[in-house]
Amino acid sequence: MYRTHTCGELRIENITNEVTLAGWVQRIRDLGAMTFIDLRDRYGITQLVVDENTPELVAKQLDELGREFVLQAKGMVRERSSKNKNIPTGEIEIALTELKVLSPSDVPPFTIQDDTDGGDELRMKYRYLDLRRSPVRDNLVLRARMAHAVRSYLNSKDFIETETPVLIKSTPEGARDFVVPSRMNPGEFYALPQSPQTFKQLLMVAGFDRYYQIVKCFRDEDLRADRQPEFTQIDCEMSFVEQKDVLEMFEGLTRHMFKEVLNVEVTEFPWMPYSEAMEKYGSDKPDTRFGMQISDISESVKGKGFGVFDSAEYIGAICATGCSEYTRKQLDSLTDWVKRPQIGGKGLAYIKCNTDGSLKSSVDKFYTEEDLKKIAEQVSAQAGDLILVMSGEKDKTLVALGSLRLEMGSQLGLRDKNTFKPLWVVDFPLLEWDEETKRFYAMHHPFTSPKPEDIALLDTDPGKVRANAYDLVINGVEIGGGSVRIYNPELQAKMFDKLGFTTEQAQAQFGFLMNAFKFGAPPHAGIAFGFDRLVSMFAGEETIRDVIAFPKNNSGRDVMIDSPSEIANEQLEELNIKLDLKEKK
Amino acid sequence: MYRTHTCGELRIENITNEVTLAGWVQRIRDLGAMTFIDLRDRYGITQLVVDENTPELVAKQLDELGREFVLQAKGMVRERSSKNKNIPTGEIEIALTELKVLSPSDVPPFTIQDDTDGGDELRMKYRYLDLRRSPVRDNLVLRARMAHAVRSYLNSKDFIETETPVLIKSTPEGARDFVVPSRMNPGEFYALPQSPQTFKQLLMVAGFDRYYQIVKCFRDEDLRADRQPEFTQIDCEMSFVEQKDVLEMFEGLTRHMFKEVLNVEVTEFPWMPYSEAMEKYGSDKPDTRFGMQISDISESVKGKGFGVFDSAEYIGAICATGCSEYTRKQLDSLTDWVKRPQIGGKGLAYIKCNTDGSLKSSVDKFYTEEDLKKIAEQVSAQAGDLILVMSGEKDKTLVALGSLRLEMGSQLGLRDKNTFKPLWVVDFPLLEWDEETKRFYAMHHPFTSPKPEDIALLDTDPGKVRANAYDLVINGVEIGGGSVRIYNPELQAKMFDKLGFTTEQAQAQFGFLMNAFKFGAPPHAGIAFGFDRLVSMFAGEETIRDVIAFPKNNSGRDVMIDSPSEIANEQLEELNIKLDLKEKK
Repeated sequence: MYRTHTCGELRIENITNEVTLAGWVQRIRDLGAMTFIDLRDRYGITQLVVDENTPELVAKQLDELGREFVLQAKGMVRERSSKNKNIPTGEIEIALTELKVLSPSDVPPFTIQDDTDGGDELRMKYRYLDLRRSPVRDNLVLRARMAHAVRSYLNSKDFIETETPVLIKSTPEGARDFVVPSRMNPGEFYALPQSPQTFKQLLMVAGFDRYYQIVKCFRDEDLRADRQPEFTQIDCEMSFVEQKDVLEMFEGLTRHMFKEVLNVEVTEFPWMPYSEAMEKYGSDKPDTRFGMQISDISESVKGKGFGVFDSAEYIGAICATGCSEYTRKQLDSLTDWVKRPQIGGKGLAYIKCNTDGSLKSSVDKFYTEEDLKKIAEQVSAQAGDLILVMSGEKDKTLVALGSLRLEMGSQLGLRDKNTFKPLWVVDFPLLEWDEETKRFYAMHHPFTSPKPEDIALLDTDPGKVRANAYDLVINGVEIGGGSVRIYNPELQAKMFDKLGFTTEQAQAQFGFLMNAFKFGAPPHAGIAFGFDRLVSMFAGEETIRDVIAFPKNNSGRDVMIDSPSEIANEQLEELNIKLDLKEKK
Repeated sequence: MYRTHTCGELRIENITNEVTLAGWVQRIRDLGAMTFIDLRDRYGITQLVVDENTPELVAKQLDELGREFVLQAKGMVRERSSKNKNIPTGEIEIALTELKVLSPSDVPPFTIQDDTDGGDELRMKYRYLDLRRSPVRDNLVLRARMAHAVRSYLNSKDFIETETPVLIKSTPEGARDFVVPSRMNPGEFYALPQSPQTFKQLLMVAGFDRYYQIVKCFRDEDLRADRQPEFTQIDCEMSFVEQKDVLEMFEGLTRHMFKEVLNVEVTEFPWMPYSEAMEKYGSDKPDTRFGMQISDISESVKGKGFGVFDSAEYIGAICATGCSEYTRKQLDSLTDWVKRPQIGGKGLAYIKCNTDGSLKSSVDKFYTEEDLKKIAEQVSAQAGDLILVMSGEKDKTLVALGSLRLEMGSQLGLRDKNTFKPLWVVDFPLLEWDEETKRFYAMHHPFTSPKPEDIALLDTDPGKVRANAYDLVINGVEIGGGSVRIYNPELQAKMFDKLGFTTEQAQAQFGFLMNAFKFGAPPHAGIAFGFDRLVSMFAGEETIRDVIAFPKNNSGRDVMIDSPSEIANEQLEELNIKLDLKEKK
């Protein structure tokens, strides 16, 4: 061992101990008669002192030191004359007797401090230095603690952690697969799993009863801030359960994590049907930290001669508490905001419920004070509130209002990141119609069970069929999702048919699963949590990149190791492939 | 929930309880007046009874049932008249009142029993049925318990479990990489990690201090029984430690696993230099459950006129206790055994130490009784023992004798799989000369530190340099291996030079690591355990396939899902590659 103690360990009780520490130079303060070195490791910072009593040989070494040098330091623990209450080792310091430079350091490209001067790109290129900063390292420690909390809960509930293969089979359904050419099977490819879905279902057929895995998954998609080509899921499956059992079990897991890791008690996990989430929040992942629900005011505003509303399929409103004093400029800016292509609103009407009890609206021409009062009552607006109204096609208007609601929530400071409001969104539609390809797609995946009472609708009105599917939503973020699965081979075959698979295609892709179902499949259901997102929520970070040790950038590159990269021609040849580069346009 | 209890839960205390169970039909015994159904789930087997008191509707359902049907069964717990002491539920049975077939089953292609009639291929194709058999499932449960034991030990020692990337960069050194074409970076490829080696070293540079991960690794090699293209490692790294600290820490981990999982106390973890392992056991992974060490008898047998020995570089012997009565036939068969190409022996001489004190040898012509006695003394042979002698080139002969020693150990029943003898093999050579390519290769990997006292030899006699590298060997199996790492960029550059890298190649492949070392790298060291092998040893299985849920066969195929497989042309096109299949010869 290069050390007797860590840099976070020594206390006033250790005074007079002879100790050896090892760590990095955080900073050096030369006060003339005395020099202080802050030595840092993962566990903390300890102050080293060189003064008139320090051996000359040691004092002489100071000149060669710099930031981020790795030192081994011997000395005696003594009480500090000026104590630092901000750090646990702040009562002591080490009077140096020996000093050894274990590794020198070039001047780092950015400062290793909580508030660094390094930009995003530089920090990613030198990620190993970025990881030395406490906020980044703390995120990774938090991540490890969360994984531990997940495992201890699920182990206590008889779940078996089981590894499923990473080299699997490509399936055209869903997102793009990453593929791996097989040298031993020329012309053939493995795919990396987008999730272990079929394997965990096979484990249920195998009678494993309760399975989980914290597992890397892969999707070759164009990346956004909160997407990575490789990401981590908490993947779970249970047999002989109904939807309610799954929701209870994983409500328990979620509570356990909040309690163990953040010491937060989360009280309620309400269930909300998808249709209600869309009607009231304009989103299938409502942020329920605040109210401001959407009201359908179509009935109240139609037929008063305002053409825009009269011709709209739907008119909805939200009530922004205490915003009646919004200025013309603020309202114009909100109008511009909803008209952005991402939101797609055509306009924004408003009704100000002034503090003096009067009402003032942007559509005064068409509505009497009485009309406006009725609307205000309908959206429970009080004096001092601002009612915001949008109209148009129902689905699109709801989504736009949902976005506006979030924006107003942010503006009003109603989205505190230390408040956690989970809920289950349930009763999702089973299928989604795609206008472009003129076919249905599985909203969740092709293995999701329709609600038994809706099965008959599969033949008559497939779009109306609800699924036994559920999402765990916290603070407007989809943290997990799952479903009760189909376990009947005929129903599974019918699902593939509805999704436009020929019998041959279904057999080629998923034959092994449908065959497995012929040998006694138990009723089963499961869920997968996006672990990266969950950690970033616990850490209070905006992007999952901040909770991943070595993330990739938006082009899927690891700029630190400079990957992906070209490979040797001999490798390509062995793999029976060659490059087929298109000319650049 | 489809059940109130599992099939392994009910006891005599539950008598008169109304219960609901769910599970698979293990077997049905129709005794005329009564019918017994053994209902099985992961937790056990419970007997269901249909007799004259069973509702007729239930009794009628019996005709449609078969093996592996999934049932939901309601009834009352009652005491059995004829108890079964072999199972925990053997005192009770369920008098059926309701029965529901949740899923029928085709007749399974092999019996779901501990001793199945299914061959290897059939069991792999229907792995989900194979996994229903207790011995297979027990292996996977053991695996999960071992992973849990690893984590609880390492967490208690302040190791941070950290995920490293799966999509990394291809490096020509070492085994073949699996590669993944990047759609977003045309013409470029990711590689799947053969180990997280460089990343864990970067985590040390980042000050993580103690890292571990139970992680999938990948090697595109031609497969043998104990190899899989994807395998699992317990990967660990520590900072500010010397070799001794690492060995103590992971001796602790190994003890913990044996104690927690098998309730076995492992007492000693001796250290054995590589050179001693080779001299005494003819192997760098000696099976020390038994003695029968190799003796160098060159001095004693040379110069007596026996040309074979006189011209040999080395003559070695082992002493097989109590084998003096081996017949001519047995000895001939041993001689054939050592002459097999895998062993490569040219012949086998023997000396029988007869129980009457006389000595009889296959080389009597050249050696007096006195000569033979001297040899017998040298190998500590007693009356009743058999001395086996091989000669030739030293290294090859030692390895052949090592193999013969293991064979004799097996024949004599000295390799009990419930006895565990661990040891550390230390002081490996740093470099290995390859005759074919006329260059040195890293015996461990290019990041392994030479012993400080041997560094000077790097320039004068590289083959003599010993490494600070170590293997954990248990019962002749290499369970783990690691090393103290180089943390000085100049020494690392020198190593790459000795391994035949140009400066440019080294920079292109490992520049990120050498650059990282310029910013203050701590001394660090680590180890990786082959988790699959460790589990198979704990499970008493011969091959790692038996402890992997969904293994691949020797051509790297998953015969259950039929992977790898062809992919669509559009996929190839998007990835900017095309097939380049050679004509079959």
